[in-house]
Amino acid sequence: MARAIGLAANNVNSSNGGPFGAVVVKDGKIVGEGGNKVTVQNDPTAHAEIVAIRQAAKNLGTFDLSGCEIYASCEPCPMCLGAIYWSHIDKLYYAATKDDAAKANFDDSFIYAEIAKPKDQRQLQSVQLMREDAVKVFEEWIETENKIPY
Amino acid sequence: MARAIGLAANNVNSSNGGPFGAVVVKDGKIVGEGGNKVTVQNDPTAHAEIVAIRQAAKNLGTFDLSGCEIYASCEPCPMCLGAIYWSHIDKLYYAATKDDAAKANFDDSFIYAEIAKPKDQRQLQSVQLMREDAVKVFEEWIETENKIPY
Repeated sequence: MARAIGLAANNVNSSNGGPFGAVVVKDGKIVGEGGNKVTVQNDPTAHAEIVAIRQAAKNLGTFDLSGCEIYASCEPCPMCLGAIYWSHIDKLYYAATKDDAAKANFDDSFIYAEIAKPKDQRQLQSVQLMREDAVKVFEEWIETENKIPY
Repeated sequence: MARAIGLAANNVNSSNGGPFGAVVVKDGKIVGEGGNKVTVQNDPTAHAEIVAIRQAAKNLGTFDLSGCEIYASCEPCPMCLGAIYWSHIDKLYYAATKDDAAKANFDDSFIYAEIAKPKDQRQLQSVQLMREDAVKVFEEWIETENKIPY
């Protein structure tokens, strides 16, 4: 965790991105890490946890990070928490909370609240189109043999 | 949307990843698009919407996709919905629902339910450590001039 918080502090000192860092560990060794790189890489998805997860998956040569733990300098936002679930990481250690992040003007609490709302009550306008065509693709997927689950 | 569903169908036919596609549009032109690339790129974060958002941000040279719309062949999972909020995309069009995705054995509904729970009731174990050190970094961020908000 000291390493994750150090990556966050480095970002503040170097103007490389938001004040967040994350480290992915497997069997006591760091397999991926990173600071937030949203502004420096022009990538709105480049939160520290996403950067660290992508690096760990690349280093380990698998999309499945079962057996890994993640240390995040702040409680993950819904995007990053979702990424932790998809990656099958076993355990999350976090330091600051989403309310601490909100005090520093980050939208984590707002996005948690939005995601919990029914679609038609969110600030983001959502419109459904062409459902039947998309469901057909799922049906083809279900019938496909030799597919790789993730 | 036909293009997004076509990208999803291509994935099923080519075994390149899950049956999902997404397209980001600005002023009537496609600025980013992609199919799910989780298995082919060993990247658990490479959902179609994330791929399309990253490509759009790279093409437009900005982390702020205000003025853009996203077409997704399926209702975004929490990770992707979070990414849509962080990117400031204006409007979401989706085709299949998260329950359609669940029938095809994808975890979207499960992850929505988990994220809505208090941390101590989630399947993912969460442990807080070193909060004070992380909050200090936020305080430094608040006091930093010339930072780039996102």
